[in-house]
Amino acid sequence: MKTLPLLLLFIAFSLTSAADDGYRLWLRYERITDPAVRTAYNKTFSFIAVSDTSDISHNAAKELQAGIGAMTGKHIPIVKTMPKSGRGIRLSLSGATDVTAVKADSYVISLEGGNVVIKSAGNTGLLYGSFALLRHLQQHLPIEKAVSQSKPKIQLRMLNHWDNPEGTIERGYAGSSLWKWYELPETVDPRYTDYARANASIGINGTVVNNVNASARFLTAEYLHKVAALAGVFRKYGIKTYLSIHFAAPKTLGGLKTSDPLDPEVRKWWMEKTKEVYSIIPDFGGFLVKANSEGEPGPQDYGRTHADGANMLAEALAPFNGVVIWRAFVYKADPNADRFKAAYDEFASLDGKFAKNVIVQVKNGPIDFQPREPFSPLFGNMPKTPLGMEFQLTQEYLGFATHWVYEAPIFKECLDADTYVKGKGSTVASIVDGSLHNYPLTCMAGVANTGSDRSWTGHPMAQANWYAFGRLAWDHTLSAQAIAREWAQLTLTTQPKPVAAITDIMLRSRDIYVDYNTPLGLSRPWTGAHYAPEPWQNRSSRPDWTAIYYHRADSLGLGFDRTATGSNALQQYRPEVTRAWANPETCPLPYLLWFHHISWSQKLSSGRTLWDELCHRFYTGAESVVWMQKQWASVQSSIDPTLHADVTGRLLKQHKEAIWWRDAWMLYLQTFSKQAIPAIYRRPERTLEEVKEGVNVYLMR
Amino acid sequence: MKTLPLLLLFIAFSLTSAADDGYRLWLRYERITDPAVRTAYNKTFSFIAVSDTSDISHNAAKELQAGIGAMTGKHIPIVKTMPKSGRGIRLSLSGATDVTAVKADSYVISLEGGNVVIKSAGNTGLLYGSFALLRHLQQHLPIEKAVSQSKPKIQLRMLNHWDNPEGTIERGYAGSSLWKWYELPETVDPRYTDYARANASIGINGTVVNNVNASARFLTAEYLHKVAALAGVFRKYGIKTYLSIHFAAPKTLGGLKTSDPLDPEVRKWWMEKTKEVYSIIPDFGGFLVKANSEGEPGPQDYGRTHADGANMLAEALAPFNGVVIWRAFVYKADPNADRFKAAYDEFASLDGKFAKNVIVQVKNGPIDFQPREPFSPLFGNMPKTPLGMEFQLTQEYLGFATHWVYEAPIFKECLDADTYVKGKGSTVASIVDGSLHNYPLTCMAGVANTGSDRSWTGHPMAQANWYAFGRLAWDHTLSAQAIAREWAQLTLTTQPKPVAAITDIMLRSRDIYVDYNTPLGLSRPWTGAHYAPEPWQNRSSRPDWTAIYYHRADSLGLGFDRTATGSNALQQYRPEVTRAWANPETCPLPYLLWFHHISWSQKLSSGRTLWDELCHRFYTGAESVVWMQKQWASVQSSIDPTLHADVTGRLLKQHKEAIWWRDAWMLYLQTFSKQAIPAIYRRPERTLEEVKEGVNVYLMR
Repeated sequence: MKTLPLLLLFIAFSLTSAADDGYRLWLRYERITDPAVRTAYNKTFSFIAVSDTSDISHNAAKELQAGIGAMTGKHIPIVKTMPKSGRGIRLSLSGATDVTAVKADSYVISLEGGNVVIKSAGNTGLLYGSFALLRHLQQHLPIEKAVSQSKPKIQLRMLNHWDNPEGTIERGYAGSSLWKWYELPETVDPRYTDYARANASIGINGTVVNNVNASARFLTAEYLHKVAALAGVFRKYGIKTYLSIHFAAPKTLGGLKTSDPLDPEVRKWWMEKTKEVYSIIPDFGGFLVKANSEGEPGPQDYGRTHADGANMLAEALAPFNGVVIWRAFVYKADPNADRFKAAYDEFASLDGKFAKNVIVQVKNGPIDFQPREPFSPLFGNMPKTPLGMEFQLTQEYLGFATHWVYEAPIFKECLDADTYVKGKGSTVASIVDGSLHNYPLTCMAGVANTGSDRSWTGHPMAQANWYAFGRLAWDHTLSAQAIAREWAQLTLTTQPKPVAAITDIMLRSRDIYVDYNTPLGLSRPWTGAHYAPEPWQNRSSRPDWTAIYYHRADSLGLGFDRTATGSNALQQYRPEVTRAWANPETCPLPYLLWFHHISWSQKLSSGRTLWDELCHRFYTGAESVVWMQKQWASVQSSIDPTLHADVTGRLLKQHKEAIWWRDAWMLYLQTFSKQAIPAIYRRPERTLEEVKEGVNVYLMR
Repeated sequence: MKTLPLLLLFIAFSLTSAADDGYRLWLRYERITDPAVRTAYNKTFSFIAVSDTSDISHNAAKELQAGIGAMTGKHIPIVKTMPKSGRGIRLSLSGATDVTAVKADSYVISLEGGNVVIKSAGNTGLLYGSFALLRHLQQHLPIEKAVSQSKPKIQLRMLNHWDNPEGTIERGYAGSSLWKWYELPETVDPRYTDYARANASIGINGTVVNNVNASARFLTAEYLHKVAALAGVFRKYGIKTYLSIHFAAPKTLGGLKTSDPLDPEVRKWWMEKTKEVYSIIPDFGGFLVKANSEGEPGPQDYGRTHADGANMLAEALAPFNGVVIWRAFVYKADPNADRFKAAYDEFASLDGKFAKNVIVQVKNGPIDFQPREPFSPLFGNMPKTPLGMEFQLTQEYLGFATHWVYEAPIFKECLDADTYVKGKGSTVASIVDGSLHNYPLTCMAGVANTGSDRSWTGHPMAQANWYAFGRLAWDHTLSAQAIAREWAQLTLTTQPKPVAAITDIMLRSRDIYVDYNTPLGLSRPWTGAHYAPEPWQNRSSRPDWTAIYYHRADSLGLGFDRTATGSNALQQYRPEVTRAWANPETCPLPYLLWFHHISWSQKLSSGRTLWDELCHRFYTGAESVVWMQKQWASVQSSIDPTLHADVTGRLLKQHKEAIWWRDAWMLYLQTFSKQAIPAIYRRPERTLEEVKEGVNVYLMR
């Protein structure tokens, strides 16, 4: 109790600051109220011994000290050598040198003579092991049960920030960018450290700090020194810093006449620039590239291939062991093409043509982070090219910061999908983790949902998506349920009943969202605002930037025919997959309209007609938000009141919008189906015109 | 001490959270360590008695309870009736009804039988009195010295937020908007309450929540309900909510064919819309309008005057006692005109033509919030029209969030300026506070510098500008020094020596900034980026959006001739002012280049030639930042370490930029002056081309 007055000096006083504002994420380290647990922990943790003097090992010990200290109320000294008496934690770096990255990240937690020993071949492994132990203790579990070992299945576990230099975030819904570019490098926000802690705690070891629609600024010395200040913070938590690059930088920045990747001057420019980058950030990770996509420059501007572009950068990065992460998110503004096929069409034939330090980063689905997409057909079709996975954490198509959607089921659905590339069991996960094709490089990226909001993610429950991404990038065999439960325990409450109720909401949340947003394989009703669905939207500078391009509603029916009678995109999959999905009878209902144009009155496997099934989904989806509300209300007594009120407000909004979005689709589709909404459902309380007016509010300047 | 364990539950733990992050502003309520002071306070404060049950009175009592509680460590009960024994605070609402707003805001603090009594005719007065008492106690002053009375000199003391619906802030340098439009009205961020507390504590009683470049969204029912949720929070702290309106809303929102203010349909539309606004926000304040300015629509689009436009809105607002605040910030894209004269030219002749509930809001200077401007010649020239003052708190032209500029001297310089309108002593303040012309309405607005950053204002020291604005809107006779000292005591430390050192920095900071940015009456080197000076900028869609328009450098000299031989803008002032400023011998040096084109070799009153004086100013300005750094370093032991480090970083950046900006001007002007930089100064370490390259970095996409 001696430290109490001191601590009190630092309590940020304000009328509202007593609340849990979500800032601490899953690293709350709440004081343990159960005396039995606290006593047991107190007995075991009287020191933290660490002989390694690296920043990373030091931060591992510091985190243990702070975390266990807060949970037990006891100050635990950090020492260099094991004391003669007492029990404690030992962080033990094995003597091995020249270990692989995966080995350096792996750890073993054991009990030796009453001490908890965390062993690793690398200091990053000590850090990850320390966070694993803290995770264990935060769940108030017996110390003996902490004995474990773990190694990451993916080497590069990364966040991609779509943050712009002016502080805005493309598709960001949680305030402005965390990075204060105009203040860097002189002012280093302490929050950068908490960002690094949070990432390290779930195994994330890389971050791309700027938008893939990249400003060339980031390659100037002025900005590289700013990036270096961030890298200086991140490095101490085992996180490498990467940059998105502007492919035309040799022209815009270097003053060259071309950015042709085969031009010797251009290659020289990149080599020199890369050298400069490494002179400023010695452990720089590499470049992320969006090229020839949505107006961004790229090698095709000069008649070159993606491989030509990537290999030029790879050549520049190779001397420094940097990597090129080249995105496969491409599609042409061709009214006759099927955007679904674009990535495969452009990339599959390039397999084997990329340099060794290139990763091709593929979005989980063929289009663009829809609430439900079949896996991208590229997975499995580039055996000689490491394919990285790109998931989206920020809720561009998932209700922004006002809808509660737990994304682990989306990630798992893709990772567990069977490509049949080498027969049954050739899951997407086995491709991405390198096991199927022996990729020398493996990568999983999440487009970050973080921002300057105090809660980091806007919707406090969206923290779980950041968490789940990190945990799955480390070990994709974890279940969505196990991660949800773990996250809720660390973040919200350790009481079993509310944890179960919250886990229940989380696990059902994605299907509920899909039902009121894009059931049965509909997609992309967002066009102008990205805040309001416009399924009627039929005009744009590109056909694939309208809504009607995707749903293809007409008087006969609904859906995009991607079978042999249509775009034949299904042919990009292996026969086992094609066969199952090409037949509307066997195609899983959730994917139905992705692949088939179904007539309004066709009976589905559910026993309902398409129209009735749509009504059923839209209505039960919206209605299920009421269930979410009730479920959330039931846990009120276990949750911080401010946090509870915050989420209650968001669920109110979610329900309002679910009805709005349902009405938008139903009333619009009804103009084609000419069928009534079944009498068991209340008719929309507004007209299609009124819905459109409501949408237009969000499209106004 | 019984409450300690409970409090501990709420300590937000993180490795960095022990720091003072600036969130509490000047309402820190730090525990008093001096036992004598604490004992005295403890003796006096054993209850807070308040019989009035309004939200505002309740919040006054709650603030006293929380503030004194935190300072003394004692829980002080709030009671309805005075206890028989013990001493405490009594909040006493006088029985008077139908008092003026000013009277309702005024308060008296007295000692009665050992009790501290705060009396007012309005609950807002009780709130302001309570904050005054807390301010007193935070400075550890004797209770007897709290005896005082106060009334505001200005009725409407307002913040103007230039916040956009997507969450960005025009000229915002502290993160994104505080208002979470997509989450409102269902989710009400607790921070809104802290915003209201901060404003109320310095007497601010109105806020315009959206940008003057207004989205019509805010007049839709969808958004009015969002605004109402904010108003519901603000109201409880005596703050009225206002909206900026889009003048063309009858067309864009109402579907009318015109927005002509004399069209009966248009008038009807505004009346109905205003009625709707008040049905949703019963105590709505009124409309702020930017019309026919920088591309915004306005009455002149239909051949009508500003008065026509304002009066139409005034008619709609009058039944609800709402006001129109019509901005005088106008200027035409005329290459031959002098922007300096535009507001006067367009508005002075309209004097007497505005409805009673219209205020014309005038920026302090004739151009646009430059680091130093002469007062706007409109002040004094509209005796029949209430003129409101518009100051800018956000540092658009004052170094954003990385330069420390205390703005009270800017405000005071304008308020104390003598217009000579009714003879000597006709200060701008006496016009704005209504005393000179008996204005029935008085208003002072500050363009807010707040944002979602944890410290509210980006640069923690910029909090002082928000504070100073509120204090001066209440009482413009306060000195910049007194406010600086008070703010530093409340916000940083109560120790006299560091307070003196910090006050010293603050009071000199503006002149230092002017010296390295725009000395001797230079202005507006910012064009594209607003982050980097471009005095060479000579191309734009409008002549007055170039830099050369303002400084008029040529081979002969520098400065804008606004005497009779030039644009004759000086004629807009009274003869006493014109006479003094029209003569380059008597024109104060700080205004020299505002009014005169001076030859490079002309000797100034300082004894130096223009060129040498420019060199002197630019160099000593930049060098003085080193003095600021040293001064700040000297207070390190008295300031929270994280906060100290933050400001230290910003001062480093400020110095770097001061040199950069100095070099930009010096090297550019040298191409005209053809003179050497005096040998006592170090020559710039870069060429003009290099400076331009540095600027271009901040202009890249």
